Amino acid sequence: MIEIKPYSRTVYYYETDRMGIVHHSNYIRWFEEARDDFMRQINVPYSVLEEKGIIIPVLSVSATYRKHLTYEDKFSIQLKCKRFTGIKSYFEYKVFDEDGNLCATGESSHCILNKDLKPFRFKREFPEIYNIFAEAAEEGPRS
Amino acid sequence: MIEIKPYSRTVYYYETDRMGIVHHSNYIRWFEEARDDFMRQINVPYSVLEEKGIIIPVLSVSATYRKHLTYEDKFSIQLKCKRFTGIKSYFEYKVFDEDGNLCATGESSHCILNKDLKPFRFKREFPEIYNIFAEAAEEGPRS
Amino acid sequence: MIEIKPYSRTVYYYETDRMGIVHHSNYIRWFEEARDDFMRQINVPYSVLEEKGIIIPVLSVSATYRKHLTYEDKFSIQLKCKRFTGIKSYFEYKVFDEDGNLCATGESSHCILNKDLKPFRFKREFPEIYNIFAEAAEEGPRS
Amino acid sequence: MIEIKPYSRTVYYYETDRMGIVHHSNYIRWFEEARDDFMRQINVPYSVLEEKGIIIPVLSVSATYRKHLTYEDKFSIQLKCKRFTGIKSYFEYKVFDEDGNLCATGESSHCILNKDLKPFRFKREFPEIYNIFAEAAEEGPRS
Repeated sequence: MIEIKPYSRTVYYYETDRMGIVHHSNYIRWFEEARDDFMRQINVPYSVLEEKGIIIPVLSVSATYRKHLTYEDKFSIQLKCKRFTGIKSYFEYKVFDEDGNLCATGESSHCILNKDLKPFRFKREFPEIYNIFAEAAEEGPRS
Repeated sequence: MIEIKPYSRTVYYYETDRMGIVHHSNYIRWFEEARDDFMRQINVPYSVLEEKGIIIPVLSVSATYRKHLTYEDKFSIQLKCKRFTGIKSYFEYKVFDEDGNLCATGESSHCILNKDLKPFRFKREFPEIYNIFAEAAEEGPRS
Repeated sequence: MIEIKPYSRTVYYYETDRMGIVHHSNYIRWFEEARDDFMRQINVPYSVLEEKGIIIPVLSVSATYRKHLTYEDKFSIQLKCKRFTGIKSYFEYKVFDEDGNLCATGESSHCILNKDLKPFRFKREFPEIYNIFAEAAEEGPRS
Repeated sequence: MIEIKPYSRTVYYYETDRMGIVHHSNYIRWFEEARDDFMRQINVPYSVLEEKGIIIPVLSVSATYRKHLTYEDKFSIQLKCKRFTGIKSYFEYKVFDEDGNLCATGESSHCILNKDLKPFRFKREFPEIYNIFAEAAEEGPRS
């Protein structure tokens, strides 16, 4: 199983709002950044999936905020692929500040579709990619 | 009780992504637009609260996506203040397209703080505003 | 010639930054909103152009800031199509606050391309749309 | 004079629009990212300036687009501080793709204000920071 490194970067100025802190909607974007980084780490960049006609739209997303972040704060996101079924995938996110404080948590679920926006036989059509995802997930289709 | 009109507008081009549809993070921003519209409808614009030293940060937010929207689609958001306790408030959102199809649902919870980022005695300090919120909510502190 | 009404709306919370004012990048997005509104006013919505295989990417954009706007400020944008050549189009923008103060000005230029990202004979292929744009512009190809 | 390293990162999915490419407004945000990176490189992070009561709002910004970028493209931005007068500063930007192609150019001008949004005697009040900026700029107040 590939060890997934946390995704990290620094907060941009334009991500803050006039409350002085990061606008809550940006965490949803950060989760996407972390997901894309995860897919690069397992050697299946999302752009490669798109080229193969696979898209992974978001079915649901949630975030819970505990401690605010603001401009120039460094944050890191620990991502877990909780489950991968070939039809759906489930992720969990933990956002930490530089001192290791948990700032936010989140979850997202996704469906895996082909160009016609239909589910397809992932395992049969792309067995290698399927296996990479299955390996990277904590739970598989039947567990 | 004030009748809350749905909030509606048209999707902007910059809200779409290269999947051809509205990026999912924008629904979280739309929920905020709907909340701000709601507060204007009950005659307590958020900017007025800020002037009084009241801020209402987001504690949690979630969205579930059912049907995509894209550029120039007209959408409307039905918002309900599910509960208001003086310390916290809870909202529900339903996003519809022009044909009345349910495109997304969502929820958010918020805490109500003063300038020092502390809870305060809302009912005692701002009884009029407190009552407006209590009236607009489906459930109060004790119900 | 169609009388173009100013485009107007209210500033969203998420458009502010921690300087307490609208982040300057949002004016660039507002210019796009005003452009899209203009195209709807002349009965050629951009989504209709896209369906016909016409895209109008931005070649250049600029903004000059005079007076800041912030959350819940109402603003209006006066747009002029300065020139339309069939290959390029040029726009000017003036952003006003509710009291009529000029808050920002801007310009953009665009090329008009087909699906293959090539210039095409707009006048010959879409004479009706061409004429609408030519009418709406202050200057034509040769003036 | 400090050698300024180009700022670089990868395009996020949410920065694309349904034309399939990066939305033009994001380049304006990237210029800000490059500016902030520049200020960190010269050891005067913008957050430190803010703490000292110095703000540097944008007076004007422009961008010219030559070659589009899209999702997962790596880009780098070469920034030059063209001029620093103590009251204003002027920047130039060049955005390159991974193959060294020039994708966009831009400029921005800024005023340097204190907490009361007034110009102040930068050189007298913060001589060290003033000198760092003066060193990093190609032209000074009088050149």
